Amino acid sequence: MEKIRVYAPATVANVACGFDIFGFAVNNPGDEVVLEKKSTPGIVIKEITGDDGRLPKAVEKNTAGIAIQKYLAHIGREDQGFELSLHKDMPLGSGLGSSAASAVAGVFAANELMGRPLSQKDLLPFAMEGERVACGSAHADNVGPSLLGGFIVIRSYDPLDIIQVPVPADLYASIVHPQIEVNTKDARGILDKEISLATTITQMGNVAGLVAGLLLPDYELIGRSLVDVIIEPSRAILIPGFAEVKAAAIASGALGCSISGSGPSLFALSKGEETAQKVAKAMAAEFAALGIGSEQYVSQINQKGPVVLAD
Amino acid sequence: MEKIRVYAPATVANVACGFDIFGFAVNNPGDEVVLEKKSTPGIVIKEITGDDGRLPKAVEKNTAGIAIQKYLAHIGREDQGFELSLHKDMPLGSGLGSSAASAVAGVFAANELMGRPLSQKDLLPFAMEGERVACGSAHADNVGPSLLGGFIVIRSYDPLDIIQVPVPADLYASIVHPQIEVNTKDARGILDKEISLATTITQMGNVAGLVAGLLLPDYELIGRSLVDVIIEPSRAILIPGFAEVKAAAIASGALGCSISGSGPSLFALSKGEETAQKVAKAMAAEFAALGIGSEQYVSQINQKGPVVLAD
Repeated sequence: MEKIRVYAPATVANVACGFDIFGFAVNNPGDEVVLEKKSTPGIVIKEITGDDGRLPKAVEKNTAGIAIQKYLAHIGREDQGFELSLHKDMPLGSGLGSSAASAVAGVFAANELMGRPLSQKDLLPFAMEGERVACGSAHADNVGPSLLGGFIVIRSYDPLDIIQVPVPADLYASIVHPQIEVNTKDARGILDKEISLATTITQMGNVAGLVAGLLLPDYELIGRSLVDVIIEPSRAILIPGFAEVKAAAIASGALGCSISGSGPSLFALSKGEETAQKVAKAMAAEFAALGIGSEQYVSQINQKGPVVLAD
Repeated sequence: MEKIRVYAPATVANVACGFDIFGFAVNNPGDEVVLEKKSTPGIVIKEITGDDGRLPKAVEKNTAGIAIQKYLAHIGREDQGFELSLHKDMPLGSGLGSSAASAVAGVFAANELMGRPLSQKDLLPFAMEGERVACGSAHADNVGPSLLGGFIVIRSYDPLDIIQVPVPADLYASIVHPQIEVNTKDARGILDKEISLATTITQMGNVAGLVAGLLLPDYELIGRSLVDVIIEPSRAILIPGFAEVKAAAIASGALGCSISGSGPSLFALSKGEETAQKVAKAMAAEFAALGIGSEQYVSQINQKGPVVLAD
């Protein structure tokens, strides 16, 4: 195979209570990569679309470029050259793991073209290196679910220990991306560095409750556990209308609602697609009432991770 | 029914990573209560055995007495008098939920004699009031599992939200109680009041991992998740030989090992009874090498909570 098109899904990281340890993938939006072998070494970024010219074409500054570079170094094949095209089908800086999806699509595509020397799970460290370029540290809560699909728990970063947790079939995500922008580095900067023991205990209870709710499964328990007493109070102030949008989601039947990643997108989880559609509309209407436009997405939890598209 | 004998099981609270939110019950040791109706109002503590004369016979200072008193007030039956005998079949101040087991046995017995007006789960707040007398605050991580059996997650204290998590059948606990004593109030006093965000994230990862490990089930994951970076580092210094005993447990095949409640008992979890027996012996041998005697208990996770014994 000389050329491949790969789609990697957007992701919701943190999932209310699980800062840096929880994430799940959705079926849409996502990112598309076209990767083609070249006869000379080196990676060339041929084209980036859908980014309004905002993403760097220098390989060492591009999340997909870096991920492929690190991957080739690891398998000892830096002699293999690639031409990369990146099609952003999702908003940048939205808190939906845009950089992670590109890195995942890139490294997955490269592994396919190289004859799959590594397993899908083993691609994670290279996609994480892409994340390091985008947000300053190698987080796995977006690349993990984008690469593997499903709901992901990162039990440990050192050593990396990623667990896939089955989700109930009727669990749907509503995502609303308001047309404002929050920089991930800023969003991390405003967080408290020290947390009281009492607050930690509250958060741990919800972390345990959410995992139990997914596995039992128990939708009501999932809902009661979608509570974040550590991160959301700090980050919510960066999102105009946060409290109203969240209240609208709950009033429309959502199990829970919080910030996706570092925002400004909000996600809600619901039982059933019909409720999830209603929830997304109600959230968008609340933003609209404040004069803020938005994109909405409704999806089951994605179970596949990246997929190869027909050429 | 005029008289009843009830046995309530000992419990392991915290379970490494789950300070104040995790606990499980074991089949032995435990506490026994004999409760008999009287024709006049008021609770009288007739006899306490197995405590070396250390427990108070004044009802309002006794965990079982308080629990029954609060229960009777709640159901509006303070006119009903009881005579209570308490047989401690487990060490006091051991970190095995001795006060919780007494409170649970007492309130469960009272509810049976009153014709079961409340469900078993609804007895929890009264048993918790017993705990308040013993350790200064109304914790549920011992009374929860002692009352309900199994592995318990306390998702929230306000409102109280208790979840029973199924455990794999081959999971065994080894408990070793060294003959030293740690006061629960002291053990809480030495804890850090503020925790770094990074440490909180590490702990949350293990909390999520342990719940996932129990439910998937995945014994190796349970083992990797039995890590406590918040409480154990502070409390381990109160237990002579802690590091050596823990290392001996792991070397003998335990999945993990940590402090039971506020100590000084240590628990380990293992796959299979044979391993759990070996682990208990190795832990006891390590204490013995330091000149510290110990009691050992090996048990599956108790699934029943309190049971009525034949008279």
